[in-house]
Amino acid sequence: MGRLGILTGLLPDDIDGALIISNENRRYFTEFVSSLGYLLVTRNNSYLFVDSRYGEAAKNQAKDCIVIEFKKLSESLCDIIRDNKLKNIMLEGSAFTLNECIYIEKIFADAGAKAIKNDSLDRIINTMRVIKTSEEIEKMHTAQMMTEKALTDTLKLIKEGVSERDIALELEFKMRKLGADGVSFDLIVLSGKKTSMPHGVPDNNRVKNGDFILFDIGATYRGYHSDMTRTYAFGNISAEQKRVYATVKQAQQNALDMVRDGVKCGDVDNAARSYIYHAGYEGYFGHSTGHGVGLAIHEIPSVSPNSDFVLRNSMVITVEPGVYLSDNFGVRIEDMVVVTKDKYINFASLPKELITL
Amino acid sequence: MGRLGILTGLLPDDIDGALIISNENRRYFTEFVSSLGYLLVTRNNSYLFVDSRYGEAAKNQAKDCIVIEFKKLSESLCDIIRDNKLKNIMLEGSAFTLNECIYIEKIFADAGAKAIKNDSLDRIINTMRVIKTSEEIEKMHTAQMMTEKALTDTLKLIKEGVSERDIALELEFKMRKLGADGVSFDLIVLSGKKTSMPHGVPDNNRVKNGDFILFDIGATYRGYHSDMTRTYAFGNISAEQKRVYATVKQAQQNALDMVRDGVKCGDVDNAARSYIYHAGYEGYFGHSTGHGVGLAIHEIPSVSPNSDFVLRNSMVITVEPGVYLSDNFGVRIEDMVVVTKDKYINFASLPKELITL
Repeated sequence: MGRLGILTGLLPDDIDGALIISNENRRYFTEFVSSLGYLLVTRNNSYLFVDSRYGEAAKNQAKDCIVIEFKKLSESLCDIIRDNKLKNIMLEGSAFTLNECIYIEKIFADAGAKAIKNDSLDRIINTMRVIKTSEEIEKMHTAQMMTEKALTDTLKLIKEGVSERDIALELEFKMRKLGADGVSFDLIVLSGKKTSMPHGVPDNNRVKNGDFILFDIGATYRGYHSDMTRTYAFGNISAEQKRVYATVKQAQQNALDMVRDGVKCGDVDNAARSYIYHAGYEGYFGHSTGHGVGLAIHEIPSVSPNSDFVLRNSMVITVEPGVYLSDNFGVRIEDMVVVTKDKYINFASLPKELITL
Repeated sequence: MGRLGILTGLLPDDIDGALIISNENRRYFTEFVSSLGYLLVTRNNSYLFVDSRYGEAAKNQAKDCIVIEFKKLSESLCDIIRDNKLKNIMLEGSAFTLNECIYIEKIFADAGAKAIKNDSLDRIINTMRVIKTSEEIEKMHTAQMMTEKALTDTLKLIKEGVSERDIALELEFKMRKLGADGVSFDLIVLSGKKTSMPHGVPDNNRVKNGDFILFDIGATYRGYHSDMTRTYAFGNISAEQKRVYATVKQAQQNALDMVRDGVKCGDVDNAARSYIYHAGYEGYFGHSTGHGVGLAIHEIPSVSPNSDFVLRNSMVITVEPGVYLSDNFGVRIEDMVVVTKDKYINFASLPKELITL
């Protein structure tokens, strides 16, 4: 059964349809890429409404749905709702803005239907998206390979005095030259004291002897994201830097060793966190250990303290503990992995031993 | 008076406050840049709620507001609403998703306030944003200069067989090397038959003799956008291509010549459109003649047929007519201009005579 068929089966009994407008979810269900469109899912058929820019391409490419090229969305949508006698239609609550909702509710009212406005549809879709198919995993693997190739080539160019911003720009350029759609997020390249900021932004800060250089980077390929962090030494680093690096490396390995079908996310988080805390760095690891990845860079589950979410076969998560010593330095090491029955498969192939550039 | 003071004065009488969450509008009112934050505007004070990532920077940089670093937004927001006895708070309807709205309404209910959910706040803010200050115009000018420098340097690299995608990537890289924040939109570089698609996407299509090459491009600088289109000949083009080029060039000039304070957008559109139609290309110019530009690439007004919107001093619009001959070729020429009392000031300085590369 196709994805749209599965979604239909998961709709609550009192619901006749669902209206999906986010680019990501339209792409997930129809495999058709566009910057605008309305996917109306009903128990019989699904309808993809697009404007004249996308009509022809959608008819050729969109899967498992009837493509309707609209001149006036209000009229085309109203007709289909009436023909199918739809009464209760769930909206994608994470995507509709209030203004878009007002517009759609007018159309629904004219067609005799009611909009169901909550996060139920998102929850249903997220339970589907969290399990990745082999095709999805393959795309994420391609994205990861592009990231690693771009990073490997960029590392060769790093010299004392190069700015974070220029390194980040070079990396992105290389990823895109390799065929990436783009970057998974604004690439994070930080050096020196700035590595202590988990959400730092690359600027004109320049690499110097004794720095850590932290790369939190990823490419997208056919919509799918990759995510990886590596921290490298530049020149001579201190004993404390080495100790923190070794701590994070072991913490990350401990968390990875917990990953398999049936394990709670909270337990994966705890494997990294307790090791870091016992090493004397309690209070210096403020964020979660990881998150799901797919068509979005952040998906369910959150790999965070006390989470009861149970990992299942074919989920993709990151494992990325860190230690951040304010105004001094920070280290984070991150891999993206597929959960399997007994362990995990790592997308990342770049080494995690401390490397000095 | 600051922007927040002006906004307060424009709120309807029965409204006590407004909650702004879009990155753009938070930036517009506070000049503070962040990826998350909540700006609560009241008749007495305005409050910017940010998390620990932004607390310190916001306190140093955010203008005309009290910065509150929250641990739990629900508690901090609830306290301020209660302290100020706010009852009716408008939401930014173009930015709140349904799910975010459900979350905020719970907080409001706990604090004894009601959310006003429509597009009134957006309309008020848009009437403010449509008039640009000299500082805003300066940033847009910088963005435009970066765009022109990057294009000029990229044109030198174009040879037969280069792909649209590689040209677009080179252009973006150069803009960002020059200090641009990024691109105004995914850069449009099209050649040959693909120039007939107003919304075409650069791909591996390669430049060849007899092609038009169309660039619809722009950089952003400190949040502000630029937008320009130029169409160049590559090698020997046909008499028909030359005729269409000349038609679009004159149509664009006719529209520009209409631009000044007090003129309706519909009249600007008509100046270009009627010229194109009379030249025999009715049905080959399907889009509007232009749009406002600023912190967003598309702002009010729409310079479209029959629009009664009256241009005023210090508005910024694009003027971009085109002719698109399906499966053959297309031409578009676009400048971004500031409306003045008697005419306009053009941001663009690159020539519009037909240039052969």
